[in-house]
Amino acid sequence: MEEDLEIRQAAAKDVPEIVAMLADDPLGATRESPDDLTPYLTALARLTDDPNQHVVVAVRGERVVGTLQLTVVPGLSRKGSTRSIIEGVRVHGDERGSGLGTRLITWAVEESRRQDCQLVQLTSDATRTDAHRFYERLGFKASHVGFKLQL
Amino acid sequence: MEEDLEIRQAAAKDVPEIVAMLADDPLGATRESPDDLTPYLTALARLTDDPNQHVVVAVRGERVVGTLQLTVVPGLSRKGSTRSIIEGVRVHGDERGSGLGTRLITWAVEESRRQDCQLVQLTSDATRTDAHRFYERLGFKASHVGFKLQL
Repeated sequence: MEEDLEIRQAAAKDVPEIVAMLADDPLGATRESPDDLTPYLTALARLTDDPNQHVVVAVRGERVVGTLQLTVVPGLSRKGSTRSIIEGVRVHGDERGSGLGTRLITWAVEESRRQDCQLVQLTSDATRTDAHRFYERLGFKASHVGFKLQL
Repeated sequence: MEEDLEIRQAAAKDVPEIVAMLADDPLGATRESPDDLTPYLTALARLTDDPNQHVVVAVRGERVVGTLQLTVVPGLSRKGSTRSIIEGVRVHGDERGSGLGTRLITWAVEESRRQDCQLVQLTSDATRTDAHRFYERLGFKASHVGFKLQL
């Protein structure tokens, strides 16, 4: 059934299914508010207006089964390189092990090439050891420490 | 002499001094091209046009002595949170230990608050252990693994 999978730009109608996936996660469960979609709809409108932002959904049949956000970040370092940053990768519980995560990350890497990025980067919570093996299998190097400061 | 330090938006005239700092670094030495500023000027023009990008320089007297890039990234996760990402932090060799790094990061954190970010993040190469202690002293948590894929 892999043939009927489509990866396309996220729209407002996809927000309930995206938020359900964000919340269906050991870390996301305490951070999200699936009963109040207003802040997500506001954020999606801002993202859609920004040419450097690409929030996509993977759709199988009529169901949203995956999502990620790709941000294109120009910069001065590395001879004025542009990099891309992947955030918010989620795969529906029913689809885990189906290769959908690989399809989503492969889409992000190919889109980054189309946008002339020289580097793709992401951070993964230190507790997500399965995710770390997944990214290493796709060729990513765990070369950095990711620091966060909550405001 | 700290009183005469100014942090302001980077301009084309600052590019030679910014690139000299990017290159004066154990990792940057092999990545930069201070003899050809064209790609940096092209990148700075693109950055200056983007309201979510803030490349700043720290100037003492007439000299550029520090730089960083702050990117504002809206998103869906964490209830539609906006985060900021710090990249390309450099302090001139003459200024190390002067507190300038703290001034630059404090500027970035305050600007992130002004822009309603809920999270500030950055990655630091695993070899930069002094930098890791510096960020932890400023309240950052080393909670994530940073993955990179060169294209």
